[in-house]
Amino acid sequence: MEWDIYLSGEIHTDWRQKIIDGCREHNLPVAFSSPVTDHESSDGAGDMLGEEEKDYWRDHKSAKVNAIRTKTLIENCDVAIIRFGDKYKQWNAAFDAGYCTAQGTPYITLHGEDLIHPLKEVDATALAWATTPEQVVDILKYVIKEQ
Amino acid sequence: MEWDIYLSGEIHTDWRQKIIDGCREHNLPVAFSSPVTDHESSDGAGDMLGEEEKDYWRDHKSAKVNAIRTKTLIENCDVAIIRFGDKYKQWNAAFDAGYCTAQGTPYITLHGEDLIHPLKEVDATALAWATTPEQVVDILKYVIKEQ
Amino acid sequence: MEWDIYLSGEIHTDWRQKIIDGCREHNLPVAFSSPVTDHESSDGAGDMLGEEEKDYWRDHKSAKVNAIRTKTLIENCDVAIIRFGDKYKQWNAAFDAGYCTAQGTPYITLHGEDLIHPLKEVDATALAWATTPEQVVDILKYVIKEQ
Amino acid sequence: MEWDIYLSGEIHTDWRQKIIDGCREHNLPVAFSSPVTDHESSDGAGDMLGEEEKDYWRDHKSAKVNAIRTKTLIENCDVAIIRFGDKYKQWNAAFDAGYCTAQGTPYITLHGEDLIHPLKEVDATALAWATTPEQVVDILKYVIKEQ
Amino acid sequence: MEWDIYLSGEIHTDWRQKIIDGCREHNLPVAFSSPVTDHESSDGAGDMLGEEEKDYWRDHKSAKVNAIRTKTLIENCDVAIIRFGDKYKQWNAAFDAGYCTAQGTPYITLHGEDLIHPLKEVDATALAWATTPEQVVDILKYVIKEQ
Amino acid sequence: MEWDIYLSGEIHTDWRQKIIDGCREHNLPVAFSSPVTDHESSDGAGDMLGEEEKDYWRDHKSAKVNAIRTKTLIENCDVAIIRFGDKYKQWNAAFDAGYCTAQGTPYITLHGEDLIHPLKEVDATALAWATTPEQVVDILKYVIKEQ
Amino acid sequence: MEWDIYLSGEIHTDWRQKIIDGCREHNLPVAFSSPVTDHESSDGAGDMLGEEEKDYWRDHKSAKVNAIRTKTLIENCDVAIIRFGDKYKQWNAAFDAGYCTAQGTPYITLHGEDLIHPLKEVDATALAWATTPEQVVDILKYVIKEQ
Amino acid sequence: MEWDIYLSGEIHTDWRQKIIDGCREHNLPVAFSSPVTDHESSDGAGDMLGEEEKDYWRDHKSAKVNAIRTKTLIENCDVAIIRFGDKYKQWNAAFDAGYCTAQGTPYITLHGEDLIHPLKEVDATALAWATTPEQVVDILKYVIKEQ
Repeated sequence: MEWDIYLSGEIHTDWRQKIIDGCREHNLPVAFSSPVTDHESSDGAGDMLGEEEKDYWRDHKSAKVNAIRTKTLIENCDVAIIRFGDKYKQWNAAFDAGYCTAQGTPYITLHGEDLIHPLKEVDATALAWATTPEQVVDILKYVIKEQ
Repeated sequence: MEWDIYLSGEIHTDWRQKIIDGCREHNLPVAFSSPVTDHESSDGAGDMLGEEEKDYWRDHKSAKVNAIRTKTLIENCDVAIIRFGDKYKQWNAAFDAGYCTAQGTPYITLHGEDLIHPLKEVDATALAWATTPEQVVDILKYVIKEQ
Repeated sequence: MEWDIYLSGEIHTDWRQKIIDGCREHNLPVAFSSPVTDHESSDGAGDMLGEEEKDYWRDHKSAKVNAIRTKTLIENCDVAIIRFGDKYKQWNAAFDAGYCTAQGTPYITLHGEDLIHPLKEVDATALAWATTPEQVVDILKYVIKEQ
Repeated sequence: MEWDIYLSGEIHTDWRQKIIDGCREHNLPVAFSSPVTDHESSDGAGDMLGEEEKDYWRDHKSAKVNAIRTKTLIENCDVAIIRFGDKYKQWNAAFDAGYCTAQGTPYITLHGEDLIHPLKEVDATALAWATTPEQVVDILKYVIKEQ
Repeated sequence: MEWDIYLSGEIHTDWRQKIIDGCREHNLPVAFSSPVTDHESSDGAGDMLGEEEKDYWRDHKSAKVNAIRTKTLIENCDVAIIRFGDKYKQWNAAFDAGYCTAQGTPYITLHGEDLIHPLKEVDATALAWATTPEQVVDILKYVIKEQ
Repeated sequence: MEWDIYLSGEIHTDWRQKIIDGCREHNLPVAFSSPVTDHESSDGAGDMLGEEEKDYWRDHKSAKVNAIRTKTLIENCDVAIIRFGDKYKQWNAAFDAGYCTAQGTPYITLHGEDLIHPLKEVDATALAWATTPEQVVDILKYVIKEQ
Repeated sequence: MEWDIYLSGEIHTDWRQKIIDGCREHNLPVAFSSPVTDHESSDGAGDMLGEEEKDYWRDHKSAKVNAIRTKTLIENCDVAIIRFGDKYKQWNAAFDAGYCTAQGTPYITLHGEDLIHPLKEVDATALAWATTPEQVVDILKYVIKEQ
Repeated sequence: MEWDIYLSGEIHTDWRQKIIDGCREHNLPVAFSSPVTDHESSDGAGDMLGEEEKDYWRDHKSAKVNAIRTKTLIENCDVAIIRFGDKYKQWNAAFDAGYCTAQGTPYITLHGEDLIHPLKEVDATALAWATTPEQVVDILKYVIKEQ
């Protein structure tokens, strides 16, 4: 069995690459997927359908185009890793956690100690909370390869 | 038919009361429910099961006790109103939006124009975005009573 | 048991009233619901959330506000009656038929003989095709009251 | 991951081929499926089970045989493209949109500006509205290949 | 809690009445429902939508009209009692058993010892097999009223 | 896409082989599955778990062991062909039809004209009724290969 | 809203009554249900369908008759309280916890500190762990009545 | 079709290996999966996320990390084999049986005669009860390879 892992959340640090590299080192049978992580591309995803004057509709169109991708990948994944960084609102990451919870997909949160309190509802239905990408790799290795 | 409306999100302003009052004025057949909105009670919901030394586990226990309530009410509601205010992370509100989306429950977001961009994924699967409690009342009145 | 009947489709003739009156005459234990049937109100349902310059977004906002109502009522109903008249595209009625089919809700179509061919996919998953409101009343009476 | 794309709706222009060709050019990992697009074959799909004198039953049998195919393909697809052209009722396309909505399958509509108003309910639950096959290809390319 | 009991199957003996009477004697909080049990009415259920020359289509229309009732009642019931008598094919009763199994509704079969072998698949997913209406009443009394 | 076809019902004639051979001739991308069709093996499926004195329990154990196979295959199939022959009760075939209906799996019935009336409920939710294995092959060929 | 609470597990102490009494004192809008808690009645639930010589089949019949009740009540409940005592295997209580988890029903476990280790999987998907009936009452009061 | 078999329960005897070896001998197209069966690794699964002072939280963290694996494997499997040995509480095995029942996954129990009574609820929804690994192999061989 190949495990499909969805990497949700923060797009401004290299946590995804660290997890991917770590899993490769251990030859884990995993396939990774992510939202579009290029900020500008993501914000302008709807522009190819015509420009909008109002910010709301530009954001709306782009968010929906991105949802074609993210909804499909989240529904297909076996496990999601949901990362919260230091900056920005990152409501889309919390949204993904709620989505995973409702459909029963196991997820692991990845965030620092300073975010424990505001993320308590998100952590409540997570199956693990990690503080480093290395810990995520350790868990995946254990979950997938341990006998 | 009585409509069950769940009021999710911000707990520091009186938006809930305004919506409840507005719906009463119009005699709408609605029943409202909410998470526990007393901040201290909510944070200490798990304390009755024994104290914890670590912050993480205190938060964890409380968040789970609160989830007994919120999960049940969200799954029972016909429509959710999800409010984002100016302060705090409010990840639980975005979590609820993701939960509603996955289970197909219609929801209306309530937030100011300044939050359009960070909430674009949350708004993308909402059925309406309102900026004032009065607008929410207007929508509910239309949705429930219009012929 | 009270049966919830959703009356979908055409809004320019009095077919809804005929079915409602007919069921009352027979004292059937039914509760009826419908989309908003006032054309102008329905088209402007989103205006209370602010005006739009582009037709597409005005329609979009209104259609979503209406969906809060129609989605909830269709998911709650036991049987849907889906009416196609002589005029207009009426794609919303066909949309409702597809929605009912996917969620397994029984529905009865109500349309003239001239629409048999273009409605063949819609009729294929209907449990009955009626040509008059009186026939719909007859079926409901039989289905609900016969011993 | 290979994406399964279902191409629903109008059968009288070459929009399917344009999308298929466009995706091939970009080497997208997609598999396309469609309803039977030969009009006569589709209308006579039930004839192999015996002839019918009444038009209604001939249509009914054919529509059901076609449904074996379309239902299976729609339920298996990751994304549906639903095309509305200038002519005919095309209720089957709107039916497919309702079906996709109820089962939570993302879909993109493809139609001209003149159909905005009658398709507003169908567009309300779409994740994108395109006016040309080229735009559909652009979206699929972005959704599937963007990093 | 009131228990909804659906009485499926044979329509030529008075087993339904015996169960209903027995449950009344014990004041069980139950509501019973059944398919239409008048043979002629049931066979002609589709006639009110117009006559058919071919037997197949007359049966087809009637069976579908009856399905509006039976599908709704089976999906709403808490427990089904499925009765097989000595005569006729009674495929509709076995069909109901399969339907209940797939949707996870508990059912009790009611049939004589002579039918054990041909009903083995139907009994395999039943939660009880009774040979008399009195036994069914005993089970319902136990299930609903025992402390 | 490879289509999984489940062949349910009568085990005393060679209808399965005819369908399999016919599909091979046309190189259809199909995989067939069936219940155990050796009558004695099927009746004694539970014997390997110890002998039973009572007929009921022998049948019960065997039916459940067979259900491990049939339930799995029916849930995995894309289309079921359900065959009713001239003899025996064949309640398991009707049970499978009810199961398919409840889970939304398309099925085709295969039976003679003499069984139209007793099978009307089973045919009501079938997507096609065939009288010969050749017709089933024709339908599958059309459904899977037609452009 | 009235909350349906299912009280699963140990039947040899008065924990159920304590919870029921405690909730009554606080006038909580709750309805309680339980499996049959009379040990002998429960073990002999199948006897009314005829006696069995083999212990396995007597247990099997009784367990299935009891399942008509327990399955229905567990699927209907909003929250389950699952109690593990000092004695016996109590596998049915763990079974109920697995059932609740799979269908997404919130549950609270009630057991002593000495059972922490063997119940770790059961507690992992619980939303709270209580050690006394009074704590359960406290949680229910908080969950249902807190503002 | 390859059958996915999940081997749940007791980890102190070699029953898994016997079943795996037996299936290999018969060249059955099966893939096996299991929870982590190394007792110490399993108990310490959460340690890689940081140590805990309280036993409860150490167990809790480990049980959740293990659940990432077991939940995924149980949801993916076609058949589960659930083994109860002579020692320990083994509540996780009964939990898995309840989980399988709620999601409709067929399972076979494997236990001695002395456990018949306490396991009656677990056996009630099993499709077979075996007393030796050899019997499990026999059933799998029959279910998968018999014609």
